[in-house]
Amino acid sequence: MSGDFQEWMSAVQSRMEAALSECLPRAGVAARLHEAMRYAALGGGKRVRPLLVFAAGELVAAKEETLLVCALAVELIHAYSLAHDDLPAMDDDVLRRGRPACHVEFDEATALLVGDALQTRAFELLAAPGLMAPARQLELLATLARASGSLGMAGGQALDLASVGKTLSQPELELMHAMKTGALIRAAVFLGAGCGGRALSEDRRARLDRFAKRIGLLFQVVDDLLDCTASTATLGKTAGKDKAADKPTYVSLMGLSAARDYAGYLHREASFALSGFGARAGRLMALTDFICARQF
Amino acid sequence: MSGDFQEWMSAVQSRMEAALSECLPRAGVAARLHEAMRYAALGGGKRVRPLLVFAAGELVAAKEETLLVCALAVELIHAYSLAHDDLPAMDDDVLRRGRPACHVEFDEATALLVGDALQTRAFELLAAPGLMAPARQLELLATLARASGSLGMAGGQALDLASVGKTLSQPELELMHAMKTGALIRAAVFLGAGCGGRALSEDRRARLDRFAKRIGLLFQVVDDLLDCTASTATLGKTAGKDKAADKPTYVSLMGLSAARDYAGYLHREASFALSGFGARAGRLMALTDFICARQF
Repeated sequence: MSGDFQEWMSAVQSRMEAALSECLPRAGVAARLHEAMRYAALGGGKRVRPLLVFAAGELVAAKEETLLVCALAVELIHAYSLAHDDLPAMDDDVLRRGRPACHVEFDEATALLVGDALQTRAFELLAAPGLMAPARQLELLATLARASGSLGMAGGQALDLASVGKTLSQPELELMHAMKTGALIRAAVFLGAGCGGRALSEDRRARLDRFAKRIGLLFQVVDDLLDCTASTATLGKTAGKDKAADKPTYVSLMGLSAARDYAGYLHREASFALSGFGARAGRLMALTDFICARQF
Repeated sequence: MSGDFQEWMSAVQSRMEAALSECLPRAGVAARLHEAMRYAALGGGKRVRPLLVFAAGELVAAKEETLLVCALAVELIHAYSLAHDDLPAMDDDVLRRGRPACHVEFDEATALLVGDALQTRAFELLAAPGLMAPARQLELLATLARASGSLGMAGGQALDLASVGKTLSQPELELMHAMKTGALIRAAVFLGAGCGGRALSEDRRARLDRFAKRIGLLFQVVDDLLDCTASTATLGKTAGKDKAADKPTYVSLMGLSAARDYAGYLHREASFALSGFGARAGRLMALTDFICARQF
């Protein structure tokens, strides 16, 4: 990983932390809810989806301020999903980003409302006036909503819960992950690339879609590898919990070695899909390398 | 209540039921989640918020198709809030619209995802292309989001949960209700009135705002009266639960008789705020009468 990429990544992460802090109300009315929303959204995380928004924005030389709002919206959707996924009725996890999960630090009702209100705030931000041509903005908003809903992230979480104790085929596992994590990662790429002055050509759109699908899967395969090989301290969330919960993963399906090979294959395919974009795809390439390198 | 109003109300209710059914996926992937979303959103309810959207649309002679999408979005937000409010960690209610609550009929995790995905679907629908001038559409979307979030409905629910066992002053009770139910009712009025060809004048906007705030409060006062005086069978939800849960209400704050007087006062104030709009406010007037008459 080059020093330049590392620097860019840290800059985006700091900028996101500051912007998230600014866009979430501090106190006043419903002070405890607002405190809990800040707890759930602030304080780190790799900010992979914002990084994808900014990196994809470089393909079309998009404005920083526009990309920032898109990155905030995607990250707030992600933060909402974490607050809800950790609840006892869902994945029942007590640890997130190295700290107690939101419902542990506060309470279940608050964590539920935190997720609800973070989702709302995402769409509110993305509806702000003057961000870009209004018709394009509505398109991006619809893209984010489709990716988050019952045919995307929320539907994938439902499939995930239904898969506990079952043996899924690889296509079933891929569909579940394409929805649960892939859809929002794909949306991050398209939001970033949608911030340019002109719409993408059909051909570029198709290639970007191939890239986005591969990187979504790659992210999940690496996540499965990490859940199996890394420690709870490194992850900042409970390690080995997929196996403990008897959830199907790429590692349980293919074995460790084949899952690593598969990550390598997806990395090559994702990089190949970017090859037609030239130098402007440099950040996306480096980010693909970074996502793949997390496993080591 | 005139026969004409009754007919109009039934027509809007049927149209909403059909449109909700059409806008929610039937099955395919994540079939159980989609079944549960339909369970939570379909099958009746008075559809007060859609009625307000359509009635307010008459002020500006808005198109039916445009109003329908706004009405769907508001009702989906309302349906999401019911699915979440009934959960054990929140109000813990087992009965809704005369049937088992969503988490009872399905399970808690599903009801949680149902709420999440219904909220997303609301914003997705309101981002559909070709509905109206895109800049106006973004404005209405932001209006709905503000009303639903931590400074509106979700924040009000947080205040409501925090109020259990406490004695609130009337201003505190009104703030809680203005957020919890008032904000979405106000948004319904502004979404309907925002569907016209031109934006409202400042003066008309201010008068409509006075109306919307009064009717939001009126709705809540009547709800409190009903919770105290009607049967579970009539309500289709558990009666007397505010008292059982030791929640402050207008009845516990003022007593039954003064709460009834207050409802009458709000009814007069709401009607007065509409008086400058002329004949086009006929439906909103009739709807105000209807909301007030629910208590008897």
